[in-house]
Amino acid sequence: MGEMDKTYNDKNLAEEKVSSKEIFKGVLLHVFQDTVKLPNGNETLREYITHNGAVCIIPITDDGKVIMERQFRYPVRKVISEIPAGKLESKEEDPLEAAKRELMEETGYTADTWIDMGWYMGAPAYTDEGVKMFMAKGLKKGDRHLDDDEFLNVYTESLDTLFDLVMKGEIKDGKTIVAVLKAKYMLDNEK
Amino acid sequence: MGEMDKTYNDKNLAEEKVSSKEIFKGVLLHVFQDTVKLPNGNETLREYITHNGAVCIIPITDDGKVIMERQFRYPVRKVISEIPAGKLESKEEDPLEAAKRELMEETGYTADTWIDMGWYMGAPAYTDEGVKMFMAKGLKKGDRHLDDDEFLNVYTESLDTLFDLVMKGEIKDGKTIVAVLKAKYMLDNEK
Repeated sequence: MGEMDKTYNDKNLAEEKVSSKEIFKGVLLHVFQDTVKLPNGNETLREYITHNGAVCIIPITDDGKVIMERQFRYPVRKVISEIPAGKLESKEEDPLEAAKRELMEETGYTADTWIDMGWYMGAPAYTDEGVKMFMAKGLKKGDRHLDDDEFLNVYTESLDTLFDLVMKGEIKDGKTIVAVLKAKYMLDNEK
Repeated sequence: MGEMDKTYNDKNLAEEKVSSKEIFKGVLLHVFQDTVKLPNGNETLREYITHNGAVCIIPITDDGKVIMERQFRYPVRKVISEIPAGKLESKEEDPLEAAKRELMEETGYTADTWIDMGWYMGAPAYTDEGVKMFMAKGLKKGDRHLDDDEFLNVYTESLDTLFDLVMKGEIKDGKTIVAVLKAKYMLDNEK
């Protein structure tokens, strides 16, 4: 973690684990309930999910279009617009290798240039999931290889249009908002 | 949900609930494992968390500084920098009222002007949590009212510095990244 260029007085904030209980280990979610000691000595419960982590990719064509996905997200019972993304297969998997795999499997594209866009934590109050973000450029189209039980539609949209949709609040997926806004700044500054 | 200015062919994507099982109802997390029917007729499991939703606020002073927080996030075992935020007390609570309450309780500030910045979904693959985002301006400082077992430090940082930290990847909390980038665009366009 960074935030290095400022000195904080964080000494009064840390919580200590007293005990940890595994609540559920499912096919996706791994849920814990820990008892922790607060800075004032009181004890409380912290419930959270552990996760291998994930990657996401904003793939941008030479003419400024983004390869996007439409995907049904069961928790919200809606099809939403997102950039390509996927889970790490283990905590040790190299995020760049995972990003290349997910981009190829989901969209069929490979990329000549991969640019690190930093980490994204979607909900640090209750999950340790970090999502490593990449921009992919120099795209070449191949065939995608979805799993049999994976369903998503690929479409393209200009980065400028996506930026407008983000600013109007029409795109709500957090990692997609972050990737579009960061990419817009990065590419505008290249001009 | 928006994304209205494009017509998508989403008909092949929807999943149907077959059955739903409550796995865990804790003090924070409410976990379900549903059996769903996929578009190809196969069945699979979907595990997810339900959540009342939340609010976050980017409070900006007249001279362009943001009221920020340092807070220990147990799932990642770190103190991180975030904008003020809090949970809705029920799914029916008005997000603006919740935002005013959380800003006052956590930082002591009230605000004359509240600007809607849209919704943020941190991890729609496994939680239905939506976070309503606001910008607060015309700030007035009062006394904060933290709960006895709530610990966080308040500090101020210029929006321009936060923007640089976000672009360098030093700030990783998703809602904070989104709020800083959107606010920077909105305020730069006012100039």
